[in-house]
Amino acid sequence: MLENRLFNFNPGPAVLPEEVLLTAKENLLNYQGSGIGMMELSHRGKHFESIIQTAEKDLRELLSIPASFKVIFCTGGASQQFSMIPMNLLQKGEVANFILTGVWAEAALEEAKKFGSTHIAASSKDLEYKSIPKKLSLSSSPSYLHFTSNNTIIGTQFSEEPQTDGIPLICDASSDLLHKPLDITKYSLLYAGAQKNLGAAGVTIVVIHESLLERIPAGLPLMLDYKLYVKHSSLYNTPPTFPIYITGLVLQWIKKLGGLKEMEKRNRAKAALLYETIDSDDFYVPLVEKESRSLMNVTFRLKKRELEDAFTKGAEAAGLIGLKGHRLMGGCRASLYNACPMEALQALTSFMKDFSRANQ
Amino acid sequence: MLENRLFNFNPGPAVLPEEVLLTAKENLLNYQGSGIGMMELSHRGKHFESIIQTAEKDLRELLSIPASFKVIFCTGGASQQFSMIPMNLLQKGEVANFILTGVWAEAALEEAKKFGSTHIAASSKDLEYKSIPKKLSLSSSPSYLHFTSNNTIIGTQFSEEPQTDGIPLICDASSDLLHKPLDITKYSLLYAGAQKNLGAAGVTIVVIHESLLERIPAGLPLMLDYKLYVKHSSLYNTPPTFPIYITGLVLQWIKKLGGLKEMEKRNRAKAALLYETIDSDDFYVPLVEKESRSLMNVTFRLKKRELEDAFTKGAEAAGLIGLKGHRLMGGCRASLYNACPMEALQALTSFMKDFSRANQ
Repeated sequence: MLENRLFNFNPGPAVLPEEVLLTAKENLLNYQGSGIGMMELSHRGKHFESIIQTAEKDLRELLSIPASFKVIFCTGGASQQFSMIPMNLLQKGEVANFILTGVWAEAALEEAKKFGSTHIAASSKDLEYKSIPKKLSLSSSPSYLHFTSNNTIIGTQFSEEPQTDGIPLICDASSDLLHKPLDITKYSLLYAGAQKNLGAAGVTIVVIHESLLERIPAGLPLMLDYKLYVKHSSLYNTPPTFPIYITGLVLQWIKKLGGLKEMEKRNRAKAALLYETIDSDDFYVPLVEKESRSLMNVTFRLKKRELEDAFTKGAEAAGLIGLKGHRLMGGCRASLYNACPMEALQALTSFMKDFSRANQ
Repeated sequence: MLENRLFNFNPGPAVLPEEVLLTAKENLLNYQGSGIGMMELSHRGKHFESIIQTAEKDLRELLSIPASFKVIFCTGGASQQFSMIPMNLLQKGEVANFILTGVWAEAALEEAKKFGSTHIAASSKDLEYKSIPKKLSLSSSPSYLHFTSNNTIIGTQFSEEPQTDGIPLICDASSDLLHKPLDITKYSLLYAGAQKNLGAAGVTIVVIHESLLERIPAGLPLMLDYKLYVKHSSLYNTPPTFPIYITGLVLQWIKKLGGLKEMEKRNRAKAALLYETIDSDDFYVPLVEKESRSLMNVTFRLKKRELEDAFTKGAEAAGLIGLKGHRLMGGCRASLYNACPMEALQALTSFMKDFSRANQ
């Protein structure tokens, strides 16, 4: 690891590829020999134009996004999308459908209630969200179905898209976008805050099918109107230029490594190593149902819960950062986003084996 | 200048202090020896907590902000404030008053019309915005008076706050906040996108008097509700951590140099040198009325307009970047924000004298 860096399992903002950080570092005072630093570039100049256009092109290439979808860069995180989706897309007489799989899915539902009718099409709340619901029951006149592809806090993930029978599918993919290939044509709108798998905090990527744009009512607050972003190519006002730049570098890094198939291969290998370590030693107790396990956020507890604090502190002393579980769940969590290297998993599982042996 | 940097007169995103860029560079892969880079820090960890709290503390110190004001960090730029202000503060039966001094003031007015009654209390539109209006005519039942302290595009600036006779004063200070001391107690709400005088694009600073919070209606979109930011100390969801960090570094840099009095001294000296150069040579024609001139954005034309393109290109070749006027105005513009050094002005005015001599 460069510059005495440690292994970082933070859930987001999360680890970034070192190559990305090194490139950003080189361009901080003087962007590509332009004589001014990256953050000091005009958002209307040729350098930033190329940055944002290349980021869009690379995202389109990685996800095979057809021209019928628009790619835009918003701010305000996923929470702002929780408002924008119903404000832009939920029409009178229609019902927004939700699959509840955790805290963020609930927040999206609660927000939609402010703007129209809602329906819970599926939920695993009764099971403490420890599994992904299998059966859907859509409302009449459904406007769209919203789901959270990966649940960062509890550590579950959809292994495939829910079946919607033609109802527009909307996905909060904030914590797993680009972890493996996906068929974007199954979606009508897909969004992700960048700070987990895509880059730095401060930008949210939205991919929206052009047919949805017709629904958008007049009179929305300026920066909550998808049409404004589409019309101005996300440059109506000054966008978060540095976070967009970092996302662009992350996209280039993924392409260079071989794209999403390679990401999936790596992510499956990393998660497999960690889940095997958990499953092979009853000192560790997985938190969620086996078939709903996330490849991105691996949650577990210690059988001796009183040792969990010692575990995360010991891990930190061993150079393994960010393993404390979310405050709502307790226990431990390791986030294994794209930029988390296999070496981090080797170090973590080795530490886990040692800790178990020493504390039997 | 470090790393072959050129003089940057961009209107925003704009030049940043080299000291700030160097500190950011040092902490990009390993923040203060923590073993993880600044952008990779958790927004709920001790390092970022200290960053955002110190930024607030330093802003409070620089502007002498009393405890009765809240300081929050938003996203979406000034344009998002154009919506948030009327949505949060404009009550039924009241009228939002505006002083029109340019394109951005007009945009704020147009946005407010979506949410309630508005009134133009003063305008210099008839004078093509080349001056700051002196007389105000407030509506009955005024809710607040909104003005734009500095007009980046045309190059005018209020030399002092408009008199409101007790009506809450709201200010878009995006392009001049911290350029000199101000009496915050004259304001009820003051906001600024960071990318001109305060830091990097992606964060908007809002200073709001607590008495306004009582007006805020229920049911606003989550991320457009000032109360949410106040309640969660701007950490309801992941904020734009890196832009906030950069703003924090800029605030520390200002403090170290001697605070806002020193900034004012420097800014007056820089602007004086440039305006003197313009005024002393009829080859250059100032764009706006003398007593309305901005200390931040100096606009001018060449008497021989056909030479303007050669002027900005020649300046660029001489290492002076960003002097082309806004597309709505034409001509030339030099933005002299806090981080623009006196050396840049010496180089610019020297170039201007040479260019004038060579093209008489």
